[in-house]
Amino acid sequence: MDRKKLFFFLSASIFLLLGFSMVSFAQETGNNISNSIIDVQKYERAVHIMAMLMVGFGFLMVFVKKYGRSALTATFLLVSVAVPIYFFVDDLSFFGNHKNEIEKIILAEFGAASLLIAAGALLGRLKMYQYIVLGFLFIPFYILNEWIVAGNGLGIMSQGIADTGGSIVIHAFGALFGVGAAITMTSKKEMEKPVESDATSDKFSMLGSMILWVFWPSFCAALVPIQLIPHTITNVFLALCGSTFITYIISTLIRGKISAADIANAALAGGVAIGSTCDHASHIAALIIGIIAGAISTVGFAVIQDKQKTFLKSVDTCGVTNLHGFPGIFGGLAAIPIIGGLNAGSQLMGILITVVSAVIFGLMTGKVLSLFGRRQEAYLDSEEFVDAEEFSEAEKLILDVKKLIQDEEYKNKLN
Amino acid sequence: MDRKKLFFFLSASIFLLLGFSMVSFAQETGNNISNSIIDVQKYERAVHIMAMLMVGFGFLMVFVKKYGRSALTATFLLVSVAVPIYFFVDDLSFFGNHKNEIEKIILAEFGAASLLIAAGALLGRLKMYQYIVLGFLFIPFYILNEWIVAGNGLGIMSQGIADTGGSIVIHAFGALFGVGAAITMTSKKEMEKPVESDATSDKFSMLGSMILWVFWPSFCAALVPIQLIPHTITNVFLALCGSTFITYIISTLIRGKISAADIANAALAGGVAIGSTCDHASHIAALIIGIIAGAISTVGFAVIQDKQKTFLKSVDTCGVTNLHGFPGIFGGLAAIPIIGGLNAGSQLMGILITVVSAVIFGLMTGKVLSLFGRRQEAYLDSEEFVDAEEFSEAEKLILDVKKLIQDEEYKNKLN
Amino acid sequence: MDRKKLFFFLSASIFLLLGFSMVSFAQETGNNISNSIIDVQKYERAVHIMAMLMVGFGFLMVFVKKYGRSALTATFLLVSVAVPIYFFVDDLSFFGNHKNEIEKIILAEFGAASLLIAAGALLGRLKMYQYIVLGFLFIPFYILNEWIVAGNGLGIMSQGIADTGGSIVIHAFGALFGVGAAITMTSKKEMEKPVESDATSDKFSMLGSMILWVFWPSFCAALVPIQLIPHTITNVFLALCGSTFITYIISTLIRGKISAADIANAALAGGVAIGSTCDHASHIAALIIGIIAGAISTVGFAVIQDKQKTFLKSVDTCGVTNLHGFPGIFGGLAAIPIIGGLNAGSQLMGILITVVSAVIFGLMTGKVLSLFGRRQEAYLDSEEFVDAEEFSEAEKLILDVKKLIQDEEYKNKLN
Repeated sequence: MDRKKLFFFLSASIFLLLGFSMVSFAQETGNNISNSIIDVQKYERAVHIMAMLMVGFGFLMVFVKKYGRSALTATFLLVSVAVPIYFFVDDLSFFGNHKNEIEKIILAEFGAASLLIAAGALLGRLKMYQYIVLGFLFIPFYILNEWIVAGNGLGIMSQGIADTGGSIVIHAFGALFGVGAAITMTSKKEMEKPVESDATSDKFSMLGSMILWVFWPSFCAALVPIQLIPHTITNVFLALCGSTFITYIISTLIRGKISAADIANAALAGGVAIGSTCDHASHIAALIIGIIAGAISTVGFAVIQDKQKTFLKSVDTCGVTNLHGFPGIFGGLAAIPIIGGLNAGSQLMGILITVVSAVIFGLMTGKVLSLFGRRQEAYLDSEEFVDAEEFSEAEKLILDVKKLIQDEEYKNKLN
Repeated sequence: MDRKKLFFFLSASIFLLLGFSMVSFAQETGNNISNSIIDVQKYERAVHIMAMLMVGFGFLMVFVKKYGRSALTATFLLVSVAVPIYFFVDDLSFFGNHKNEIEKIILAEFGAASLLIAAGALLGRLKMYQYIVLGFLFIPFYILNEWIVAGNGLGIMSQGIADTGGSIVIHAFGALFGVGAAITMTSKKEMEKPVESDATSDKFSMLGSMILWVFWPSFCAALVPIQLIPHTITNVFLALCGSTFITYIISTLIRGKISAADIANAALAGGVAIGSTCDHASHIAALIIGIIAGAISTVGFAVIQDKQKTFLKSVDTCGVTNLHGFPGIFGGLAAIPIIGGLNAGSQLMGILITVVSAVIFGLMTGKVLSLFGRRQEAYLDSEEFVDAEEFSEAEKLILDVKKLIQDEEYKNKLN
Repeated sequence: MDRKKLFFFLSASIFLLLGFSMVSFAQETGNNISNSIIDVQKYERAVHIMAMLMVGFGFLMVFVKKYGRSALTATFLLVSVAVPIYFFVDDLSFFGNHKNEIEKIILAEFGAASLLIAAGALLGRLKMYQYIVLGFLFIPFYILNEWIVAGNGLGIMSQGIADTGGSIVIHAFGALFGVGAAITMTSKKEMEKPVESDATSDKFSMLGSMILWVFWPSFCAALVPIQLIPHTITNVFLALCGSTFITYIISTLIRGKISAADIANAALAGGVAIGSTCDHASHIAALIIGIIAGAISTVGFAVIQDKQKTFLKSVDTCGVTNLHGFPGIFGGLAAIPIIGGLNAGSQLMGILITVVSAVIFGLMTGKVLSLFGRRQEAYLDSEEFVDAEEFSEAEKLILDVKKLIQDEEYKNKLN
């Protein structure tokens, strides 16, 4: 399929979709002042989440040293595609649509977060427009699972699962979808190519991580009733403190030295895992959930990552299995002992449906993506960007010089 | 004029100005709690805008690879000069001053944003203290135009223009002022020197762009009545999604590959253009305005930028014409069909006055700036910064080595 | 002491401490909606402060060019240790504990800020786990001083000191504690090793600085009554404008050129110094305090820093004496003329107690830290990080090439 045709098809479709979508979306009126104030406070959290999506997820993925421009451009595009598509599908009303504009934005951002997680598993191995295709395919699947599991839309369970901050429906779903897609996408050549970082890319990655850490409480508390917000955000901060602390300890115990990648990633596992229980757990429980999630995640990065590659014959570029997959499922399970009156059967059913559907949808999506062709070389900006070259100016100079010397040597040997 | 004398003159003048200024500025009292809460919410948006000014505009300009320290220092200084000067001129009461402290800060930030845009056109070709002089000259001109056009201060029009988020009075004014100043400032030598970026400077630039993107809704909704904020911010996000998406498509169609500079800049054009109508447009209109603005801006960067250079015999370093100029004017014009009951004559008159006065004030300011001397070399930190060298440590090592080899070769040839 | 044992000891102790700590921490209930809204607004400021701690302080310290991963990891760990420990000690109730969860988080963040300042003096000369030990030791001392000086816990003074934004109890205390610890920690070899930055590390440092600048008003206004917030934040912005402007002028006058380190650091001195009077000063007083503080700080960095090193036989890596020490004390003193009805004796007593106790506690802590061993080489990530190497890939290539040539030359000479 010719790329330019695809572009036109995509731009036309987005136009059409959105034309249908938002005609009926009238301005709200008649709100009293107190509700308006609360809405604006939700908006504050919506902005924090947007900072997490763009700067947080975006820069966390810049750790791939020669793929930074691509990672950031992909982030821009994934968010810009996810939000309008979420609006459109939500407006179809099939799944019951949301009237409040700010809540709709927050839910769309949740979908975009899950999409970025899925993309993290494939990072570096998609052409830029394949990320867009991924976005178009992912969001409807995401909404379907959200509707079945969190909203109990099909009435399978006796109640929707407890998952305020999305450990299951956002994190685990996105991660397993990504892993599924990676299984059908990763070529043998890509398996052998190392994913490399350097001092600068590690610092950018830690910038992204810090932005995610700082604003994570707003993510979990985005739609929590106002009286529960102080308790919720305290829990999230404590869970993050726990996972950050334990990540350093486990990382050093296993590897002998600290790994910047472990810190940038596993430090966030407390945020992933506290999602399901952030508004219910006691502070001490939140801290312990954070510590356990951080430990699980660090073991994942330090030990399981390599085995996973061999076992699944696929590469999970950002290690989303270890950051969002295991800690997300752990967080969902932790809700069973922590939340009084929770139906354990429903919670387990919700987790199971999410895991299975994410993998299946992911496998299917990977197949579709592979129809759109393949990159020649993984993890390199230069394949798709103007003015991006494989080597930096300094490196090119050195390679020139090296050649010069070797010629000299050669000549000397001839003499 | 001796630079040290200038410094003393400037520091004295800022002291004097501000001494006059704020004596009369009493603490507000007697506010009821609900108004206080709304004020604090305005403050939240004021902080978001400050993040855009400093981190957003600042890092967006770091794309010039050897001028990053200068771009960031200039940003620090431009903001720090603009805010107190805006306060001072506002307090002169000639233009009708603003009693509410937070609103005053937000209006001062708007002025600073416009100033940073103007500076973007000249970036890399001013000595550091010339940026300060630029700030001193720009802000009064800005306030004058704001008063005439947005406040209809002279009573020329039948009503002030519709420009809630400043497409015209902030973006177009700043851009055209900068272009005007660039015309009287750019030397022939500077015309020929390329403005270069590299992998790291591109990533910093995209960081700035993302910060602008994320907080843009707070910029547009800063002074919007609380009930309209949800609708306004949804519009801004949709416009940005539209421009981001289309930028990728047009950039790739025109250039064959993606340009990181197009993405970092034109992705924001939706935010520029939605300014005039952000609180009135329907969501679908907002999305379409974003798509059109993104397309205009990308064509500007990919096609017009080079022609502009030849035609105007001047360099617009950051391409502010394409990001803030064209999309700003387009946004102002879009208000005519979109806002019911808007007086088209007034709107056109306001745009015309802004365009003409910006260019004239800019030309004048460029003349004044050129009286303060010229840089020896454009786009280099090393001219003004301690410890900043033209070449990195690695590059210096290589150049040494290269010399060594060439000497060797020379010697070998002599033998 | 074996490092692994230490880890287990630390992880066990944090578990225990926190187990005691938060059992009694019940969810708040029965709050009316208006109080809840105000609490959520405090949360917004708490998030801003967290951004300052992580991204602000963290990246400000990245100026040490080969120690960036360590500086960021240390920041992660210091914050993650400080917050739970503050919670625990506060819950001991000895010093009178704080019931409101958000206020407790903000006070814990204040403690973490002071800790990060102290750590800035030692940056690059501690092993990673020594930062954790520093955190464990610092926070109780910090709380003790806070209780004596700000809360007048011992009843020594006639009233607690005026220090809303922490010029004394946060900034001066942290800086002098750090200086004290540095005196007992710095080895002779470390004295001689230069602390180097480069173009990229300078830009990261300015990113941290900008984040601190932008969110500083939220730091000072975090616990200010809602009616005073507009006045307070205006004061903080004006003080920052003043210090930024004067930093450029003084830096250039003294050094002949601009120093990026001066800009990144001294520009913030206005924020440090306005702390004590941020809610009381007039706007013009705030601007003047900022200008004076910026001047003091810049002279500190440009002139005093080197003398301090010789005089105290210690290295203050980040120059916290000049950014937080002098401007903090100046800010505390400025409260005497500015705040009507303030007891000058109490204010002076509070400053004196803080200065003396900080130095003594710091000296003691430095002694304890030195029991935990020493780094082999200061200011290098490579000692503790997997995959972090002393030289970049480009630099390694060049060094190879250089060796190659020198061998060639040597061979040629033998011939």
